[in-house]
Amino acid sequence: MDSVEQLIKEIYDDIKSQENKGAVADYIPELAKVDPERFGVHYTSIEGNEFGIGDYQTKFSIQSIAKVLSLSLAYKYEGDAMWDRVGVEPSGNPYNSLVQLEDENGIPRNPLINAGAIVVCDILLSRFEHPLRELLDFIKSICDHEEVDYNLFVARSEKSIGYRNVALCNYLKSLDNLENEPEDVLDFYFTMCSLEMSCQNLSRAFLFLACDDFRNREGKQILPIMKANRVNAIMQTCGFYDESGEFSFRVGLPGKSGVGGGIIALHPEKYSIAVWSPRLNEKGNSYRGMRFLEEFTSRTNSHLF
Amino acid sequence: MDSVEQLIKEIYDDIKSQENKGAVADYIPELAKVDPERFGVHYTSIEGNEFGIGDYQTKFSIQSIAKVLSLSLAYKYEGDAMWDRVGVEPSGNPYNSLVQLEDENGIPRNPLINAGAIVVCDILLSRFEHPLRELLDFIKSICDHEEVDYNLFVARSEKSIGYRNVALCNYLKSLDNLENEPEDVLDFYFTMCSLEMSCQNLSRAFLFLACDDFRNREGKQILPIMKANRVNAIMQTCGFYDESGEFSFRVGLPGKSGVGGGIIALHPEKYSIAVWSPRLNEKGNSYRGMRFLEEFTSRTNSHLF
Amino acid sequence: MDSVEQLIKEIYDDIKSQENKGAVADYIPELAKVDPERFGVHYTSIEGNEFGIGDYQTKFSIQSIAKVLSLSLAYKYEGDAMWDRVGVEPSGNPYNSLVQLEDENGIPRNPLINAGAIVVCDILLSRFEHPLRELLDFIKSICDHEEVDYNLFVARSEKSIGYRNVALCNYLKSLDNLENEPEDVLDFYFTMCSLEMSCQNLSRAFLFLACDDFRNREGKQILPIMKANRVNAIMQTCGFYDESGEFSFRVGLPGKSGVGGGIIALHPEKYSIAVWSPRLNEKGNSYRGMRFLEEFTSRTNSHLF
Amino acid sequence: MDSVEQLIKEIYDDIKSQENKGAVADYIPELAKVDPERFGVHYTSIEGNEFGIGDYQTKFSIQSIAKVLSLSLAYKYEGDAMWDRVGVEPSGNPYNSLVQLEDENGIPRNPLINAGAIVVCDILLSRFEHPLRELLDFIKSICDHEEVDYNLFVARSEKSIGYRNVALCNYLKSLDNLENEPEDVLDFYFTMCSLEMSCQNLSRAFLFLACDDFRNREGKQILPIMKANRVNAIMQTCGFYDESGEFSFRVGLPGKSGVGGGIIALHPEKYSIAVWSPRLNEKGNSYRGMRFLEEFTSRTNSHLF
Repeated sequence: MDSVEQLIKEIYDDIKSQENKGAVADYIPELAKVDPERFGVHYTSIEGNEFGIGDYQTKFSIQSIAKVLSLSLAYKYEGDAMWDRVGVEPSGNPYNSLVQLEDENGIPRNPLINAGAIVVCDILLSRFEHPLRELLDFIKSICDHEEVDYNLFVARSEKSIGYRNVALCNYLKSLDNLENEPEDVLDFYFTMCSLEMSCQNLSRAFLFLACDDFRNREGKQILPIMKANRVNAIMQTCGFYDESGEFSFRVGLPGKSGVGGGIIALHPEKYSIAVWSPRLNEKGNSYRGMRFLEEFTSRTNSHLF
Repeated sequence: MDSVEQLIKEIYDDIKSQENKGAVADYIPELAKVDPERFGVHYTSIEGNEFGIGDYQTKFSIQSIAKVLSLSLAYKYEGDAMWDRVGVEPSGNPYNSLVQLEDENGIPRNPLINAGAIVVCDILLSRFEHPLRELLDFIKSICDHEEVDYNLFVARSEKSIGYRNVALCNYLKSLDNLENEPEDVLDFYFTMCSLEMSCQNLSRAFLFLACDDFRNREGKQILPIMKANRVNAIMQTCGFYDESGEFSFRVGLPGKSGVGGGIIALHPEKYSIAVWSPRLNEKGNSYRGMRFLEEFTSRTNSHLF
Repeated sequence: MDSVEQLIKEIYDDIKSQENKGAVADYIPELAKVDPERFGVHYTSIEGNEFGIGDYQTKFSIQSIAKVLSLSLAYKYEGDAMWDRVGVEPSGNPYNSLVQLEDENGIPRNPLINAGAIVVCDILLSRFEHPLRELLDFIKSICDHEEVDYNLFVARSEKSIGYRNVALCNYLKSLDNLENEPEDVLDFYFTMCSLEMSCQNLSRAFLFLACDDFRNREGKQILPIMKANRVNAIMQTCGFYDESGEFSFRVGLPGKSGVGGGIIALHPEKYSIAVWSPRLNEKGNSYRGMRFLEEFTSRTNSHLF
Repeated sequence: MDSVEQLIKEIYDDIKSQENKGAVADYIPELAKVDPERFGVHYTSIEGNEFGIGDYQTKFSIQSIAKVLSLSLAYKYEGDAMWDRVGVEPSGNPYNSLVQLEDENGIPRNPLINAGAIVVCDILLSRFEHPLRELLDFIKSICDHEEVDYNLFVARSEKSIGYRNVALCNYLKSLDNLENEPEDVLDFYFTMCSLEMSCQNLSRAFLFLACDDFRNREGKQILPIMKANRVNAIMQTCGFYDESGEFSFRVGLPGKSGVGGGIIALHPEKYSIAVWSPRLNEKGNSYRGMRFLEEFTSRTNSHLF
């Protein structure tokens, strides 16, 4: 562990000392206000060793990272039946493409692109009377009961200008792949994306996907092994939009990024690690986050492949 | 090892006792002639333990599996410069789609779809005076000098009806991503796809990608670790055409299939395994091969994720 | 004229005596309720001769035919500036395709597909304080002040299930090609599509596009010649969705169809003619309407080309 | 006639005095050698009145204009059966798009895009023992027996670099819409495109499409009226690639352009007119040709619509 701590510190300092590139997401004022130089890393091993550096305790908008959490919750209860409504193939297209839906009769390629995540929200809305409470409870159960909350300003702000997601959602409805009203699904979707967590929260929370037989503090299994494996497989092939291949190639871990600058990645049976740095590369993934993780798996020789 | 042997035998018998579905590739007479009930498996651990069952010593047309070998050879010598001409992203499209090329200025999504493999062939043609000999020597070097040969009948037969690959190749030329004449590149490409190997040949040959510091019999490193990792990452996200996500999801290993009914898959730092069964599912991957591997990683708990 | 009257009667009887194929649009109850056997034709020559047969005085939902009227109104006031926001090329795609928008940065191919008609509505909303009143006044001015009205039931019904148009409209907004709020544009759009006119109303109303120097009852010019020519050219190449080429090929006139079963067509400097028959062919155009007009231009030798 | 002569002269002088924009096609040396300032116009009325100005007697490479001639020949003998293999819809895509073929199972949208013209060549190859001689005889029969010849240098030159057409042709073969070998079809196709004619040749030759009951010098009908109408309709909606709508909109005549800088257009029952000026706009159509014809139909008020 010491050497990992040391290594994280070294890589962190290295990257911090170099130019920070890319632009902060600014399509809503709440995201644009974030200091672009924030930079945090938090590592949690499956043995429970932890190490954080920089802004690892500051909460930020986890955005699309939340899609893995809602997917896990839906998969837990819905099981493989859900794959009739959403695929598990990489999309090869930008995250919010409508083209693919049109060509493929409303079945989104995977649950981590926007269209697929909207279908997952629809599944949760149909299944639970209080889907938002269920999701928050689920997160608490994997997160040592730390406070995790959503940001209503962010949610409303996204909704007020989220025309493309409104389009996606209505398009899904028109293609008969939405059970609830678009309006309601979008409310839940935008709220989910407004969840705020720190790097520490995230690397702890995602440990249930890194351990083959994870038990939370109460000793409860969150997801059966096979389902956890498969959620990881989806992250591996689909977690970074049209940069998913690149992430697998360079970093070599299952992971997921968010437009708020966060990235979660995990090495099965070893660790989970969260990085946050708001400047995004042209594909919409954290510039420093990508660089940090590439260095990290290369220097720890923990590229999964 | 005993238990693995036992397990392979059990799964093999199980699957053999069940209905065999799908159709043998019949677009050329040479492939159509193969007995659809052939079924072989060969496993090689990184410690050198081996076990084969069924038709594991019969050579068959490895077809697209050869793309991983030519990719490895090209990457070894060309290095990261080659990624200017071919991407590392999953395609989200059938293996021989021309659409993507048109949209993306002639840069194939990855080296395992036909267009990408043609570009890799072009790279080898430009680099080596005798590219075919180089490829065969490369395979020998990873394969304990066993005889590996191509089948001229198959190559000619494919060429005589391979209009779509002729189209792809000329299209790449028109988009300025081919240095040599289409005719020459296609000759090499079709010859490469006609390589014949057994399951035993394959699982031995691919061990260099499973071991972090592989040395062949002469003690020579085939590919530096990082490059091997990255070839595996490409197999993970792109090895099964538009079923790549499904293979990651169900089987959870980097792998590659061929239309001759072969599949190679490998677990980094553990083993490589080859399966051959000519009947193909609707996505063009071996029906029994997919089923066998899903059972295998599930029952050995060696789903990589 | 007598011979035209006679001919119309003959063709009408011919077609009426043959099997009526296709299905009535039934996506909203109001359209589904229409008697599928209604069949009317009305012809108006530029000299003012008229002849109607069958249900030519029954009002029906003109649906997309209204797009030509809103286009004419917008073009009259906005002039060629509007072509920055909507093209004049045939789409080669179904009428409500989102793909093309994605590929072409939110500029709809032409003003007669849904996306383009929505942009035209947006232009009218920005230009006029009371766009609906303006449109109704415009129609009255070309229609001898006959009563033309919209059907609120139809408009509301379309709105309640028009998810795809909601998607299109929000998508245009997200691509920065909508000035007003999607909600408002859609209200106007659905109201416009709910206009009800008879064949007689239509063939009279469209005379302003058939005459090079049309004056209405008050002696006012509706559209300068060049603009009228160009609206006709757009109808010629884009009036029948992905059957536009077929209509040009078989019928050889500029025209426009609506999902209510109406078709307007006109021969410059000769006549305008409206047909109504609710059963639609698989491309969404009136089955009998298409057949009638093909017979008519063939037997009057008035195929424009 | 005098006034038309006068008008042509005026417009010609006007345009000649203004800046000449665009680039000459230079993908083969033979086309690149042409003087970019050549400019000719020739007009032929259906009464036989003629007027030429500038380089109207110089032969140039008519390129894609030839597609209308081969289409007319094929339609004459094959009749409506040919529409099973090629459509009549505008493509909405660049002239040599492969995407559409992939989406639509190998049926080219229309006979004036490259893929469609290749299918027409295949039809002629299957029908005639000496298709080239038939085509030349056909042209002679509509062209007062003037010498019309192809240019072998151009044909060979196009073939040597025509990778994209090789791709298209092999792709059609792979999609089962080619009866003959791609090699043979391409030879004929490239030869056809290398035909050389002057503006005078062209405007005379296309008169058979402008007159409803055209007879050539020997009194023979070239194409029945209905077929001529329909060829014109195809030119109207498809003659200018993805600028077909624009040409209909601005010029308002059926017509066809070639990459050699020629344009033929015709007004049914009035005239045919050919313009030649090698500089092409960004859509690949003659810059001055487009401008001349827009002026001409506007000032003669002969916009067809």
